[in-house]
Amino acid sequence: MKQTKLAIIGAGGLTGKELTSLLAHHPHFKLVHITSNQVNGKRIREVFPDLNHLPDLVFQKHEVTVPDDTHIVLATPNEVSLEKAPEFLKQGRKVIDLSGTFRLQNQTKFEAAYQFKHTQWEWMEKVVFGIPELFREKIKHAQFVSNPGCYATSAILPIAILGNLRNQIQGPVIVDAKSGVSGAGGRTEEIKFAYTHVYENFRAYKVLSHQHEPEMEEYAFVGAEPKEILFTPHLLPVYRGILSTIYIPFSKPVDSKEIEEKLLSVAEKEPFIRLYKTPEEIELKKVQNTNFLDIGFKVKGNTLVIVSALDNLQKGAAGQALQNLNLMFGYPETEGLDSV
Amino acid sequence: MKQTKLAIIGAGGLTGKELTSLLAHHPHFKLVHITSNQVNGKRIREVFPDLNHLPDLVFQKHEVTVPDDTHIVLATPNEVSLEKAPEFLKQGRKVIDLSGTFRLQNQTKFEAAYQFKHTQWEWMEKVVFGIPELFREKIKHAQFVSNPGCYATSAILPIAILGNLRNQIQGPVIVDAKSGVSGAGGRTEEIKFAYTHVYENFRAYKVLSHQHEPEMEEYAFVGAEPKEILFTPHLLPVYRGILSTIYIPFSKPVDSKEIEEKLLSVAEKEPFIRLYKTPEEIELKKVQNTNFLDIGFKVKGNTLVIVSALDNLQKGAAGQALQNLNLMFGYPETEGLDSV
Amino acid sequence: MKQTKLAIIGAGGLTGKELTSLLAHHPHFKLVHITSNQVNGKRIREVFPDLNHLPDLVFQKHEVTVPDDTHIVLATPNEVSLEKAPEFLKQGRKVIDLSGTFRLQNQTKFEAAYQFKHTQWEWMEKVVFGIPELFREKIKHAQFVSNPGCYATSAILPIAILGNLRNQIQGPVIVDAKSGVSGAGGRTEEIKFAYTHVYENFRAYKVLSHQHEPEMEEYAFVGAEPKEILFTPHLLPVYRGILSTIYIPFSKPVDSKEIEEKLLSVAEKEPFIRLYKTPEEIELKKVQNTNFLDIGFKVKGNTLVIVSALDNLQKGAAGQALQNLNLMFGYPETEGLDSV
Amino acid sequence: MKQTKLAIIGAGGLTGKELTSLLAHHPHFKLVHITSNQVNGKRIREVFPDLNHLPDLVFQKHEVTVPDDTHIVLATPNEVSLEKAPEFLKQGRKVIDLSGTFRLQNQTKFEAAYQFKHTQWEWMEKVVFGIPELFREKIKHAQFVSNPGCYATSAILPIAILGNLRNQIQGPVIVDAKSGVSGAGGRTEEIKFAYTHVYENFRAYKVLSHQHEPEMEEYAFVGAEPKEILFTPHLLPVYRGILSTIYIPFSKPVDSKEIEEKLLSVAEKEPFIRLYKTPEEIELKKVQNTNFLDIGFKVKGNTLVIVSALDNLQKGAAGQALQNLNLMFGYPETEGLDSV
Repeated sequence: MKQTKLAIIGAGGLTGKELTSLLAHHPHFKLVHITSNQVNGKRIREVFPDLNHLPDLVFQKHEVTVPDDTHIVLATPNEVSLEKAPEFLKQGRKVIDLSGTFRLQNQTKFEAAYQFKHTQWEWMEKVVFGIPELFREKIKHAQFVSNPGCYATSAILPIAILGNLRNQIQGPVIVDAKSGVSGAGGRTEEIKFAYTHVYENFRAYKVLSHQHEPEMEEYAFVGAEPKEILFTPHLLPVYRGILSTIYIPFSKPVDSKEIEEKLLSVAEKEPFIRLYKTPEEIELKKVQNTNFLDIGFKVKGNTLVIVSALDNLQKGAAGQALQNLNLMFGYPETEGLDSV
Repeated sequence: MKQTKLAIIGAGGLTGKELTSLLAHHPHFKLVHITSNQVNGKRIREVFPDLNHLPDLVFQKHEVTVPDDTHIVLATPNEVSLEKAPEFLKQGRKVIDLSGTFRLQNQTKFEAAYQFKHTQWEWMEKVVFGIPELFREKIKHAQFVSNPGCYATSAILPIAILGNLRNQIQGPVIVDAKSGVSGAGGRTEEIKFAYTHVYENFRAYKVLSHQHEPEMEEYAFVGAEPKEILFTPHLLPVYRGILSTIYIPFSKPVDSKEIEEKLLSVAEKEPFIRLYKTPEEIELKKVQNTNFLDIGFKVKGNTLVIVSALDNLQKGAAGQALQNLNLMFGYPETEGLDSV
Repeated sequence: MKQTKLAIIGAGGLTGKELTSLLAHHPHFKLVHITSNQVNGKRIREVFPDLNHLPDLVFQKHEVTVPDDTHIVLATPNEVSLEKAPEFLKQGRKVIDLSGTFRLQNQTKFEAAYQFKHTQWEWMEKVVFGIPELFREKIKHAQFVSNPGCYATSAILPIAILGNLRNQIQGPVIVDAKSGVSGAGGRTEEIKFAYTHVYENFRAYKVLSHQHEPEMEEYAFVGAEPKEILFTPHLLPVYRGILSTIYIPFSKPVDSKEIEEKLLSVAEKEPFIRLYKTPEEIELKKVQNTNFLDIGFKVKGNTLVIVSALDNLQKGAAGQALQNLNLMFGYPETEGLDSV
Repeated sequence: MKQTKLAIIGAGGLTGKELTSLLAHHPHFKLVHITSNQVNGKRIREVFPDLNHLPDLVFQKHEVTVPDDTHIVLATPNEVSLEKAPEFLKQGRKVIDLSGTFRLQNQTKFEAAYQFKHTQWEWMEKVVFGIPELFREKIKHAQFVSNPGCYATSAILPIAILGNLRNQIQGPVIVDAKSGVSGAGGRTEEIKFAYTHVYENFRAYKVLSHQHEPEMEEYAFVGAEPKEILFTPHLLPVYRGILSTIYIPFSKPVDSKEIEEKLLSVAEKEPFIRLYKTPEEIELKKVQNTNFLDIGFKVKGNTLVIVSALDNLQKGAAGQALQNLNLMFGYPETEGLDSV
């Protein structure tokens, strides 16, 4: 079978590294070009000594021309994606962007959340939001996919798959999420990510003001009446994984059977969603290094509590990106992602 | 000054150890008797090699007669407290019980939460619930104090000190709490507390069904209209500390200034409550090994979010017990607790 | 290409799990039978929710007959291997044993180290010690391979590849090794592997008395004059990885250039040995989840210090087992092991 | 009793913080002046929210004049101690310096180890090396004490207290030490102390080239024939504590009884040295937050292995400094240090 050539722009970060590792085992994609402005000039095996099967590539600067017939993964900061995505799209390449730049449909909300002016808003007409479970058909035909945020995925999916039951939701949904450092920017040299500040510690950050909050509000209720989401992220002394505890107030007593049937009907047909009998079974250990979203739930009176877990670098970033790439290029959706 | 003699029944556990350590530095209490059915016969310095200033005591069996003129701390399992508390009270001793046995005023709720029959319910008339910030005067004159639960303290205090503002609360309050293993029973040999199950992991447990939920409902709204509380505890890969994120829905837009004034008025006069400017400043590191309850808050629309943190072994157990003991015996409330 | 059928006896432990995961990605081996006396009756995906690509197998009891034409991996305790290995060998199957039962050539030393009577000593004539870098040709033709210990591999290889330079060694070699809990038996429910006993802690164990000490002495000096080895293992608050600091006293000043050339000559031709310029570059992070043995060294006067690191579950157990299986069945040695 | 006034120059670092905390509980010392060029202008309770009993002080710049009748603790970098110590000494104040600046008696070795020119060498005549167990009487009469290094203490003491048995030592002594990040400079913002580089990792650093190696060689053999020491430090994913495994080659078979008697004779009279029956009982947990040095040993043939553990911020730094201060000012040596 003919292989599809890919370039990763910004391959030196955590997400780029994760995708590089996944692609190394993929039968149909061939990584031919990687860039990094931090480690350009170095060989990939030198930068990632803990990875295997790696192609024999050297990191290039972002500016170096990408070979012909090569499609693009942007694992770059927002500002770089803003500039590079349109450039590659105009060259006729397919592009998947892992930054937040092309995720929100409302420019005012975007600029409030991301604190910078969006100068390429016209491309929002072309972009498809990359949650396969919700937008599978659109992704298959997209030239341009925006890959969702890690926290956002952990909340959007459990809510969205409630389907028509979402119309019984009354009042704001609370998403109390807890992430390992790799999902919270933890690779930088900032003192707040020093061992002495993370180990044996725990704290909330960006309370009700994280940029994934509007992303959740935008996609969790697609096809239903929109509701407010109140989102608080927390930093765990853990490397990878996000667990979200989601409190959903209904307008009437929640029927446990009805919820179970709805969630099960989705879990049975989705290769990367697993439903457990109880919320206590959901834990980071079960999803780390996998592309699964695990969910469990409990009801009490009018309240539904869903606990979800995913690996922020896989289903929350590079894994979901590969799931999208498989769809964009006509390969089996689970290829290279080890779903059961 | 004359010293007050104390015995700790069940001094071999984590809470007993913490209180033993605090008392070793206290000028007015003298620990004269310690019991443990696990390590009886051993010397205290042998059992706690990491503690200092310890009195030269040997662990006794629970059955050994406590010396005269000695008051009692019960750091025992529920079943032992149920039997021992009345026995010591009838001998005229003052008793503080750190178990959950005498915390709930409603017997039906108690038996549902604790799953055993309460055969000493008549003593509930005599007992005082030991949160000094709420029941200081009663504690001063009590013969029998029931020390609150660690999770419960982390939620009751932040809500209760809202005072009359609690009457604007509409609908259930959500308490999403995260605890280190020492607050979640983590000393036992169970496989779920093995290193390989806790490290790099995170999970919820007893979702909406923890025995501290009714305790919160009972005391968070004293003097105001009662509200439902929905409580989910989680297990952190951390040894000590509890951080609770509390979502409070109001019937109208919350006035940030009003909340701040109310909380500040309490924090200014309470030696162990610290109010921070933002909820992002609250973290386990600041409260570990202290008797402080730290709080910060944020408002958005009709919702108030309070983040609280405490050390589960101090303000959540042994520290608060010593605060109560100081009150019960007429000593300065902060003695031996190092408040500023 | 025809696939080779394998059974793992004792697949429910950490080593069995690791090998199951590796085999799931291997093109030439097909896992057809797994046993576990702890989780028999359960499906593999239920027991290992964090693994992917798993075959659809159910754990059997050890006693269940292994299908014909199926070769055997023993990931069993010593006592089980002692009984099962001869049984399978007599059936004409190839067997690789991951226990310590068939590693030592001297029965007296064996029984002193392992504290039980070896009743199958005649099989020691047939067994090959499974370090491919030392015994590659023998392994290719072996029916029966004994896979080395994790600590043992981390010390034997760095010493053995010194080749003829070993004849300049004077006096005992000191191996000071530090292992994560998965290499030290850390899955059991023993209190010493509880989170509260491992986290923020560090200790030595079996000082100069670990059963891998005679294993090191036996194989580190093959082809050279034997020397005494003094071995102390320590327990790290880490899940996987072993780092060994090896102090080797020479009879004359060590020539750094000579050491480097010798080690480099080996590293250049061995797919799983990586030589770094300095010992400070060796770290657990670089070898975790890989089959590499990383080494670096420093000399001072008559002393050579080698720092080595490996993943105890891969190069220290299941990875090395697969390396041996590849050799035993004529497949490329690195297949399924992701070497560069 | 009259209190002795103290100033801590450089009180904002980990060691300064530890000493500040210890002094807050000390009946005879009164901390009257603290400096820090990082946090000057801030109140001490704001900088150390997790400490209690703190005096109400504001951090000053280093240049601010220290009040009269106030003695000096230097918890400053080497360059600052080099300048400040002579200045304060000339003012007639007593000075204890926690840096490495005045520890080595040989200027050439000092400048090789510390990589800067020592311009105040004349003060080496006045300084006393502050290990109380070795130099108690000199410390009592000293105006100027140099507090030992943390690694150095963990090796010097176990060797030195062997007394005349040291004359049977043949060849180099190997000190393989493992430290938590607070003993290895782990507060800085360097990427090597980021959570992602320390957690689940382990590595050696400064192999055979750490500046504490000559310090060990200088003081471990006082009163005996000097021997070479080979020292390798390692970084643990732990916050506090050092465990050293010390391999001592004797010229003849070591007599376990003789070692035990010698070590016990010291441990019985020294308040901060504890001898355990086996080296496996030595662990970081037992010494954290204490001023104890714990030791255990094992012999095999001509080799003696001693395992020692201490808290690098207490017996390895601030605790030992307070032990020295008690001696310098005529207070009971264990005052404020909680020895049993």
